[in-house]
Amino acid sequence: MVTSYNRIAGQSVERLAALSDGVFAVAMTLLVLDLRAPAAELIHGDRDLGHALMALSPKLLMFMMSFMTLGIFWIGQQTQLNLLDRSHRSLAWMHMVFLFTICLMPFSTVLLAEFIHYRLALIVYWFNILLAGTALYLTLVCAIGLKLTRDDTPPDATRAIKRRIIVAQSLYAFGALLCFFNTYWSIGFIVLVQLNYAIAPHLGRRSTHPA
Amino acid sequence: MVTSYNRIAGQSVERLAALSDGVFAVAMTLLVLDLRAPAAELIHGDRDLGHALMALSPKLLMFMMSFMTLGIFWIGQQTQLNLLDRSHRSLAWMHMVFLFTICLMPFSTVLLAEFIHYRLALIVYWFNILLAGTALYLTLVCAIGLKLTRDDTPPDATRAIKRRIIVAQSLYAFGALLCFFNTYWSIGFIVLVQLNYAIAPHLGRRSTHPA
Amino acid sequence: MVTSYNRIAGQSVERLAALSDGVFAVAMTLLVLDLRAPAAELIHGDRDLGHALMALSPKLLMFMMSFMTLGIFWIGQQTQLNLLDRSHRSLAWMHMVFLFTICLMPFSTVLLAEFIHYRLALIVYWFNILLAGTALYLTLVCAIGLKLTRDDTPPDATRAIKRRIIVAQSLYAFGALLCFFNTYWSIGFIVLVQLNYAIAPHLGRRSTHPA
Amino acid sequence: MVTSYNRIAGQSVERLAALSDGVFAVAMTLLVLDLRAPAAELIHGDRDLGHALMALSPKLLMFMMSFMTLGIFWIGQQTQLNLLDRSHRSLAWMHMVFLFTICLMPFSTVLLAEFIHYRLALIVYWFNILLAGTALYLTLVCAIGLKLTRDDTPPDATRAIKRRIIVAQSLYAFGALLCFFNTYWSIGFIVLVQLNYAIAPHLGRRSTHPA
Repeated sequence: MVTSYNRIAGQSVERLAALSDGVFAVAMTLLVLDLRAPAAELIHGDRDLGHALMALSPKLLMFMMSFMTLGIFWIGQQTQLNLLDRSHRSLAWMHMVFLFTICLMPFSTVLLAEFIHYRLALIVYWFNILLAGTALYLTLVCAIGLKLTRDDTPPDATRAIKRRIIVAQSLYAFGALLCFFNTYWSIGFIVLVQLNYAIAPHLGRRSTHPA
Repeated sequence: MVTSYNRIAGQSVERLAALSDGVFAVAMTLLVLDLRAPAAELIHGDRDLGHALMALSPKLLMFMMSFMTLGIFWIGQQTQLNLLDRSHRSLAWMHMVFLFTICLMPFSTVLLAEFIHYRLALIVYWFNILLAGTALYLTLVCAIGLKLTRDDTPPDATRAIKRRIIVAQSLYAFGALLCFFNTYWSIGFIVLVQLNYAIAPHLGRRSTHPA
Repeated sequence: MVTSYNRIAGQSVERLAALSDGVFAVAMTLLVLDLRAPAAELIHGDRDLGHALMALSPKLLMFMMSFMTLGIFWIGQQTQLNLLDRSHRSLAWMHMVFLFTICLMPFSTVLLAEFIHYRLALIVYWFNILLAGTALYLTLVCAIGLKLTRDDTPPDATRAIKRRIIVAQSLYAFGALLCFFNTYWSIGFIVLVQLNYAIAPHLGRRSTHPA
Repeated sequence: MVTSYNRIAGQSVERLAALSDGVFAVAMTLLVLDLRAPAAELIHGDRDLGHALMALSPKLLMFMMSFMTLGIFWIGQQTQLNLLDRSHRSLAWMHMVFLFTICLMPFSTVLLAEFIHYRLALIVYWFNILLAGTALYLTLVCAIGLKLTRDDTPPDATRAIKRRIIVAQSLYAFGALLCFFNTYWSIGFIVLVQLNYAIAPHLGRRSTHPA
């Protein structure tokens, strides 16, 4: 009888996608929420305001980085959910573990923005990315194991996604290791990796047919 | 004439589902919002930061527990709404009572995280779970009474859902009672129940055909 | 040429509905966000915590009232959008004015919860309800004027909705007037009106065929 | 192989639209979140409360302006996404850059509300609008370049959208320049431009057939 509940529970891919989009939308907006206007008492002219805004710029850069991180994971999860024909309770749970790691992202970002020189803050940030990547990977494994993918899925699609996640996570791990030199090197390297994923592959795309 | 308004009001299942997904997405993300980075003045090195983060770990555990609670209820409501052919104003209202209890969850969680040794905080938390479960149960009763379920609903589906809710709530109630020993026992027991619902049944699932 | 932009702009009812559901979901969750756990320094036992929670109960009641208000308006806008065949830029703008009044609701609620004895707080709250009702009414007028309703709309549906809004707003206005006696009378009366809309009509519904 | 991932990634227009609606819904609601009830200690009667609320009215005006800005951009992105047959990873990224500028809007608004006399605050606000307009423009360019638009798109639709963005941005830029006189002139001019886009064109619309 309990099996009967599990048989009917958590089967809508659309609803899972809607929950995901909601979580990402809130997380993305909350990231920027930590950018606060300077206190009015401290500002006596356009110049003071200019200095105060300049002082916010490292925070702004941090948020751009996290927005990119969230963007990369949003595209990742959307791509995976798109392959599914139907959902399943186990998959919904794996996906929710992934969403939990996404919900942690605003915290990790604020921590890194506040303690940008501290190795530990960078390692927490990287660990968050690692958890998200792992959860996404396991969601895919779960989808394959339960045969939830659509019949028209290109046979090498799931392999390509898996490889993509592993390569990206290896680069992030290397970036995180650089923090034993200097956290700025780590951040710079991670941003370069992200820009590569967001921009670079597009250059070659125009020649191939869009599919 | 007033009847006419009620006849046409609140009939879209999709819209109700979209509102639900939005409320759950915001509630899940807000849970984690209470995890705050430690104050910069108190931190003078990676070690201090390490201690400060360790001090946050009980809060983090509390949020994981509440995320699981929200996950269980999200799957529950999604399963129920999936059974519906159309909605109805009464059902929409019952569902909104349920959403109200979900909106209270971040408050109950912060309360328990802050006052983890206090029996009363645990009882408030449990009471919130009880309210959510009761509202979900009544939503189902309402759906059956108004004959809103789809024609292809397996005859024992609604009974299975009802039993599921009652068994889960009995276990939660037992867990809450344990707080008269010690609140940690309660929390531990509730987490075990949740893990059982999230993980355990999956083990046996692979052998049965996924439906 | 500018006409050409206006001709193609803002035409998706689904997107407008999705934006609405998002705004309502965030507003509903934020309402409860103002319920804060008491400060840990002030609490030295279950008893203190009990007193502190009791002190929160008027706030909780205020939030229940506002949640009901939002619920009533959510059902109202959903009913109206359901009647539409397609959208239109003018309608999208009218609907956004309505959403603006919804976004103000958490502010009005906190104001009333904080200043529950003050006539002005109650009048602000009522004025917010009035604005929301007016915007909803004008959205309907706009939909009719632009002939956006579906062909299968029952001919008296739009009249029923209009009458419903006018009756409800008259009752709210009467309730607001009661604040010249006492703000509690106003709040009590408004809650009764809301309960009437949320619960009472359902009693008679079971006998009529659900449509 | 990496190409294979890019070939299948980010292709759902619906999901991109859902993420957008979520971000706009949260940003719109958060705008108003900065309107805070006055501190209870400072209020000793309806009169004090009246003064305190009057003191909030410039903030309220600022939020109405930003809500209109968000409304204009929401209609803009919805119109563009509506033209698309399918999405593409490059387009998803351009659109996310646009969403990032939208997420910055609550910050720019609070900054301007707090420092309404400061030229720099106004320039930051205008720059945010400029970034959003530019990102939206480039998203359209990207959609055209990748041939993602639907076959039934009127041939001059994309040109009309482009012209619309350029004219609006020119007007905003002129408004921003007025701040070298006085920031109030800038704000007044920008609000007039927005009201023109939100209201004026509707007057002429009724005569043309709604499409």
